[in-house]
Amino acid sequence: MSLRRSASLSSSMADNLAKQIEEGVIPAGAKLPSIREYADASGCSKNTVISAFEMLTASGLIEPRRGSGFYVAQRARAATEAEESGVLDRAMDTVWLMREQLQVKPDVLNLGEGFPPIEWLEATRLDQYHQRVVRTGVASLFRYGSRYGYLPLRQSLQQKLSGYEIEAAPSQIVLTHGANQAMDLVLRYFVRPGDTVLVDDPGYYPLFGKLKLSGANIIGVPREVDGPNLAELERCMIEYRPKLFFTQSVGHNPTATDTSAAKAYRILQLAETHDTVIVEDDAFADLRPRSLTRIATLDQLRRTIYVGSFSKSVSAALRVGFLACNAALASDLADVKMLIHVSSSEYSERTLAAIVSDGHFLRHTNQLQEKLKRATATAKTALKKLGAEIFKESEQSMYLWASLPEWTDSMKLAKAMLERGVILAPGAVFSPASERVSAYSRFNVAYLADERFVNALRALAP
Amino acid sequence: MSLRRSASLSSSMADNLAKQIEEGVIPAGAKLPSIREYADASGCSKNTVISAFEMLTASGLIEPRRGSGFYVAQRARAATEAEESGVLDRAMDTVWLMREQLQVKPDVLNLGEGFPPIEWLEATRLDQYHQRVVRTGVASLFRYGSRYGYLPLRQSLQQKLSGYEIEAAPSQIVLTHGANQAMDLVLRYFVRPGDTVLVDDPGYYPLFGKLKLSGANIIGVPREVDGPNLAELERCMIEYRPKLFFTQSVGHNPTATDTSAAKAYRILQLAETHDTVIVEDDAFADLRPRSLTRIATLDQLRRTIYVGSFSKSVSAALRVGFLACNAALASDLADVKMLIHVSSSEYSERTLAAIVSDGHFLRHTNQLQEKLKRATATAKTALKKLGAEIFKESEQSMYLWASLPEWTDSMKLAKAMLERGVILAPGAVFSPASERVSAYSRFNVAYLADERFVNALRALAP
Repeated sequence: MSLRRSASLSSSMADNLAKQIEEGVIPAGAKLPSIREYADASGCSKNTVISAFEMLTASGLIEPRRGSGFYVAQRARAATEAEESGVLDRAMDTVWLMREQLQVKPDVLNLGEGFPPIEWLEATRLDQYHQRVVRTGVASLFRYGSRYGYLPLRQSLQQKLSGYEIEAAPSQIVLTHGANQAMDLVLRYFVRPGDTVLVDDPGYYPLFGKLKLSGANIIGVPREVDGPNLAELERCMIEYRPKLFFTQSVGHNPTATDTSAAKAYRILQLAETHDTVIVEDDAFADLRPRSLTRIATLDQLRRTIYVGSFSKSVSAALRVGFLACNAALASDLADVKMLIHVSSSEYSERTLAAIVSDGHFLRHTNQLQEKLKRATATAKTALKKLGAEIFKESEQSMYLWASLPEWTDSMKLAKAMLERGVILAPGAVFSPASERVSAYSRFNVAYLADERFVNALRALAP
Repeated sequence: MSLRRSASLSSSMADNLAKQIEEGVIPAGAKLPSIREYADASGCSKNTVISAFEMLTASGLIEPRRGSGFYVAQRARAATEAEESGVLDRAMDTVWLMREQLQVKPDVLNLGEGFPPIEWLEATRLDQYHQRVVRTGVASLFRYGSRYGYLPLRQSLQQKLSGYEIEAAPSQIVLTHGANQAMDLVLRYFVRPGDTVLVDDPGYYPLFGKLKLSGANIIGVPREVDGPNLAELERCMIEYRPKLFFTQSVGHNPTATDTSAAKAYRILQLAETHDTVIVEDDAFADLRPRSLTRIATLDQLRRTIYVGSFSKSVSAALRVGFLACNAALASDLADVKMLIHVSSSEYSERTLAAIVSDGHFLRHTNQLQEKLKRATATAKTALKKLGAEIFKESEQSMYLWASLPEWTDSMKLAKAMLERGVILAPGAVFSPASERVSAYSRFNVAYLADERFVNALRALAP
């Protein structure tokens, strides 16, 4: 093994260990397994393990005790024992879940995982695009870009949106640091503390966290198999006069439902009547058939802000998302973005532009959808064998929303399963009223056939 | 010329033109020069120009009129004519200046520019690092990273800070989407509308924009040649009981001053007495001698939040900055970051980690400092020839803060010079009280010897 390869293995091992320590998987004060044990378990040489331990020691995360081995430093614990501030208190439940999601825990089956398996995405060889990125102009890799973001990528998105019959000029598209920043910019622009905002219930929980941080009053609109409950939506609009309604029309997270065209039309009518802006999060666009109805298609971005993402189909690490809306609002939101961050990363944007403008990209998303279709079928079979009730039997969806027989509180189920090494995403966290008991959980279809799930479930007595 | 190279030239031309249209440099309705004129001016083939025009036509930015040529579409104007919302109104002066700074105007001498010339940075060949980035683990290029950011980069930063005698474990370091996001996270965490925040006056104007967006009450503390005016600082702390004091101790923007060790100590004493948190922005660290005193060095991050950047020494397009503070606060700020954006870009962070851990990086910053030293000397000579008064005659600084004889209002000077193709950064924009008249301007030392400046100035009668 070359020295360089060995150095890279050590770094990678140190990185993984550090994550586990910082997130509390390996608690402060704990003794680490011996160098020999690590070497045996990882298949690396002892020298590689020693280098990794040296890196962690240098960074203060672990400390050697003479004759006794390596221990996780007490100092590392301070971060997790921190007293939470007022502003964070409001969002602590989301903080907890998001921290869980960002953790990398070895030997754990994560059915609550939000992403496609890495193997599904690896076909997009990020490394192969870099030469192209560099060729488009090295000089601009050193500067801030336009406040809207890299134009050729916005031009690609114009075409992508056109495929959904949404006409948007590049001046209506603002590139963001992921779809989450897009939603945050909308919040910073529209929401003052105490303002009411409507959301899907259940819905995208990281959005709830952002809303709580902004001091918004969050009201959930019940989600049905064909979209939001319209009577409730109207009642909430009359009662609360909300500025915004955040909804997901296609491949709704967590329920795997799509909003019907008829409902999309009615939602828009209600929004017109009550002067509410619709924020349509379309994070799963690349994983669902193109032809589904978006509210933005009906409305042509007059009172709809469309939010898009590449995290599920290309890479979450690039952190590139976007929003599309009317040109005047897009200019304002680009200004808010500029005030906060100066600009988004043209480096990441150029990489993504090279990927999505490549002919292979369409094939990649088609393959992704095929994989998803097969995984969804397998997952439905697995759930039905267990007697589960599936909210919406989608043909292809990253998630299924289902309840297991005799488990009326999925939070209790999640806690019990966690002890057996299986992470579930219990229904309560997807509700803005998180104290509500839910029998449903969100299952990532890619992992449902893993027998560790069935085995762990069978070992439990409800 | 190969087809590929030609395609890349067209894209690049379209990109530049689009920026000029979107930022209003070429106004809506304006007729573009002919294809032949563009080809002659750019030295490209007519086919290249035609391709660029086709791209812009497809994106709706320009439109052909039969027999008459190409015109900037009216639609593009909507964005710039937008009515500004309440939240943006508060920050419009900063918005204006930041938009100006992000513009790429051909044939204009930008003495107000905030950056080193690209030629100074190009030595860091971003493209050469990508192989290394990929080797460290392609799989993780598809996922969100840790809420703190990529550990090996935090370990590099631990060493960097140690060079300033600031001891910070990786659990005290949070990577951010540029230094601007670091400051924004601090604001989101500490500041409620109406809260008072102290800043250097003059100081870093994008910070003022963020503060205005947060509804903060911004009070300026006058900057002297050796740091903030202490009597005023104390008076403001007593009168306003501010939560935060944002200051730049090293290579202060725009005055090129450094805070003396004695003043740094007194600032810290005052902050202790009045329970104010110091936010120390060290964006110019790589451009100044290492040995200068930082408040964070005296305080060891107990009540100081240190903010760092690579935008001035590596690349602004990577959008990687960081903050360092006590571990409990770092954990909270990492949570706020996670709620807003899920995570920072591990893709950019891995690229930066490869660059800064390379042996060449030290040589690069040393060379950068040498270039800066020579440019500063030349710039001082040029200013003195004009009879300018330089606030602080730094030996090496990205900027000089100076007033020109007979120009008592640098805003008037800036407007007059703009008509002659020279952009200045007038003093008023660096003050939170932007209506105040200032004789000073900020000059980028790299461009001061350009004779277009002297010629334009001589053509003016004050």
